[in-house]
Amino acid sequence: MQNHPAHADRPAQRVALLGCGTIGTEVAKQLLTSADELAARIGAPVELVGIAVRDLRRPRDPAIPAELLTADAESLIDTADIVVEATGTVEPARTLILRALNRGAAVVTANKALLAKEGPALFEAADRAGTELGLEAAVAGAVPIVRSMRESLAGDTVTRLLGIVNGTTNYVLDLMTHDGGEYADALYQARQFGYTEPDPTADVEGYDAAAKAAILASLAFHSRLSLDDVYCEGITGITAADVAAAASTGHVIKLLAIAERVRNGEGQDHGVLVRVHPALIPAGHPLASVHGNFNAIFVEAAAAGDLMFYGQGTGALPTASAILGDLVSIARNRVHGGRGPGESSYAALPALPVGLAITRYQIRLRVLDRPGVLASVAQAFAAMSVSLDTVRQVHLPADEASQSDDADLAELLIVTHQATEAALRRTVEAVSELAVVRSVTGVIRVEGD
Amino acid sequence: MQNHPAHADRPAQRVALLGCGTIGTEVAKQLLTSADELAARIGAPVELVGIAVRDLRRPRDPAIPAELLTADAESLIDTADIVVEATGTVEPARTLILRALNRGAAVVTANKALLAKEGPALFEAADRAGTELGLEAAVAGAVPIVRSMRESLAGDTVTRLLGIVNGTTNYVLDLMTHDGGEYADALYQARQFGYTEPDPTADVEGYDAAAKAAILASLAFHSRLSLDDVYCEGITGITAADVAAAASTGHVIKLLAIAERVRNGEGQDHGVLVRVHPALIPAGHPLASVHGNFNAIFVEAAAAGDLMFYGQGTGALPTASAILGDLVSIARNRVHGGRGPGESSYAALPALPVGLAITRYQIRLRVLDRPGVLASVAQAFAAMSVSLDTVRQVHLPADEASQSDDADLAELLIVTHQATEAALRRTVEAVSELAVVRSVTGVIRVEGD
Repeated sequence: MQNHPAHADRPAQRVALLGCGTIGTEVAKQLLTSADELAARIGAPVELVGIAVRDLRRPRDPAIPAELLTADAESLIDTADIVVEATGTVEPARTLILRALNRGAAVVTANKALLAKEGPALFEAADRAGTELGLEAAVAGAVPIVRSMRESLAGDTVTRLLGIVNGTTNYVLDLMTHDGGEYADALYQARQFGYTEPDPTADVEGYDAAAKAAILASLAFHSRLSLDDVYCEGITGITAADVAAAASTGHVIKLLAIAERVRNGEGQDHGVLVRVHPALIPAGHPLASVHGNFNAIFVEAAAAGDLMFYGQGTGALPTASAILGDLVSIARNRVHGGRGPGESSYAALPALPVGLAITRYQIRLRVLDRPGVLASVAQAFAAMSVSLDTVRQVHLPADEASQSDDADLAELLIVTHQATEAALRRTVEAVSELAVVRSVTGVIRVEGD
Repeated sequence: MQNHPAHADRPAQRVALLGCGTIGTEVAKQLLTSADELAARIGAPVELVGIAVRDLRRPRDPAIPAELLTADAESLIDTADIVVEATGTVEPARTLILRALNRGAAVVTANKALLAKEGPALFEAADRAGTELGLEAAVAGAVPIVRSMRESLAGDTVTRLLGIVNGTTNYVLDLMTHDGGEYADALYQARQFGYTEPDPTADVEGYDAAAKAAILASLAFHSRLSLDDVYCEGITGITAADVAAAASTGHVIKLLAIAERVRNGEGQDHGVLVRVHPALIPAGHPLASVHGNFNAIFVEAAAAGDLMFYGQGTGALPTASAILGDLVSIARNRVHGGRGPGESSYAALPALPVGLAITRYQIRLRVLDRPGVLASVAQAFAAMSVSLDTVRQVHLPADEASQSDDADLAELLIVTHQATEAALRRTVEAVSELAVVRSVTGVIRVEGD
């Protein structure tokens, strides 16, 4: 039982906040307005001792007491028990976090770019100093996927993760699915509604999802994986025709972050494969009903079976909720003794190249509309030992079908069975060189069966 | 960093297991086969020191070493650091758990019936002895909802929970939705597939869901709520006609466990309302796509927004995964010092009667098929200040429509706007007494808008 009086005699946990943008402001507000409740949950008071900002003259939310602001982040850190980093930059965040950890202060951060790049160095510093590094807010906002990986599944073996971890791209693809429009139009609309960054490159090219994939894969597979280990393709090449073709076979297109344990023939762990790319998933898969800018992570574990975690992946409020959750746990540990689980990299599985991934392809081909074409295309697949699930000839609009100079064209919609990514790529290349094939109009992986 | 050599010098955590049914057997197997990995995650070895069973002569899984079995649970407990209770009974589980806690041993249990009844006494014993009580496995199998409530959302304010927490009833209702059949047929089929207990009463009457609702509500609202505080209705009265009527307005029927914070006009917490009953939810709601015997809990929090946790709610493997997750956390705390969050009942919100619940009703009425009937029914609702969302006259099969002696009958399908449960009940009573109303054929709450 934790009752209010119980924490009266314990010294306050001193919290320093780095950054006062939208997330920092929300964290500060919640620390100030919920001080009593937080104290009850922690068993000791928490005190926000200062907020480090770059520009003291910039106008702030009126709820932020001016006397808490300082431009001297170093001195502020040196007075704190727990440092909340909410700057969103890689530097000076890295230097400041290391300073805090080296002093034995705990750190809570939402900085996925920094973690995906420098995670091991930060975890090592935390470990050396016997302190904690909280990172729940770095992946999928308030969705408690980091804690679930670190703690709830600590007695289980994760075999695979499939995640929608970028709200912007999910919003865009969801819009294309529902309106049938093109990518550029959907991106424009996402921008109008404030669902994109000023420069959307990191989102639409998959880099943001790749950073989160690296963090999640490291946690799930107890191995050190960085951004460089993640194969990454964005959504900029997805067309309305791709979306329509997906719908015609009962699928939707999502940008997926996939991390999987790869085993050799004897069932021993061979390594981890991490990739981010658009993929078709069956309309009945739980991830297919993740709409708008929501995030969800689907986890396959040996004992737990299939799990899914769903929620708002972005926004100041959800991110602040995740930060405060970490802060309460860490403060509890500091008050009552003990320490949450740190980095766990004992499995030390290597990252494997994407060519080893086992997946399926949906391929759209423009072919000559004459007898025997389907047979010769099917033969090309067979020659590469890639077997076909379905082949369908699709109706082409009259103007497209006859636009070629020498013959009428038709479209083939092909879905393969599972094969390695390398074999599938070689096959697509071979098929594209067939005399009867005019062009390969779309190649998208199929996941989640 | 946790590396294998790091735990070589630490004394083993001694684990006693109570019960060797399907769950106990699975826990024992995982403890025995994953000892190395668990040690790496904990930072010290774990040793299964014994398994207490009622009947030593009963045949066991060959993976269970016979020398671990004992009929003397008390002596076994007295040698353990951590006791895993997997008996599924209320007694002797309660006595044995109290014995373990009073000795300072930690306890991990999946026993929801016991927790919903005696939770406060167990938590108090754990608190007095400065030890931990892990209960993740008691609600929704491997879905990490307990830890998320206790830790991830520890800095947030939960406003509402909507959960599908009973796999049997979800399987039955899902089958009725897809096949259009009656309750008895679907229950029969669930039994054929092994998705029911030998006596399904606790599932179909909602008692199992109510126990889980009490546990979840206690965690979410930092208050002590027991089974007696939960309003409970089962699914035995749901008919194929109810399911069809739900579909006709774009809904599906689910057995929901609902727990919500009720505030007064000034926004202050007034209490907590916990109820289990069948309800219509919109087909687009994330809970609507929870099929078969899966569980899911939808959480609305002030800062985190909408979250959903999804996974297998039953089965030996998922339950064992949850137990091992708790066991690893607790063992880590015992090795490294520290203690996870205990019961948190500081808010001490009272349970409120179901009459105060704000909900919507879908009501089906058999009425005389003559002009003015719709107006007089609508007037009866207005007189009770319950406003209507939609009223539709539904086609009745010819034989039913003319089976009355004095007149043809029609069916009205009415969906109300929000009102208190008490007002809605009074209104249904008043409407049922109208001369033009022959019978009230169905009343189901509508949630999740």
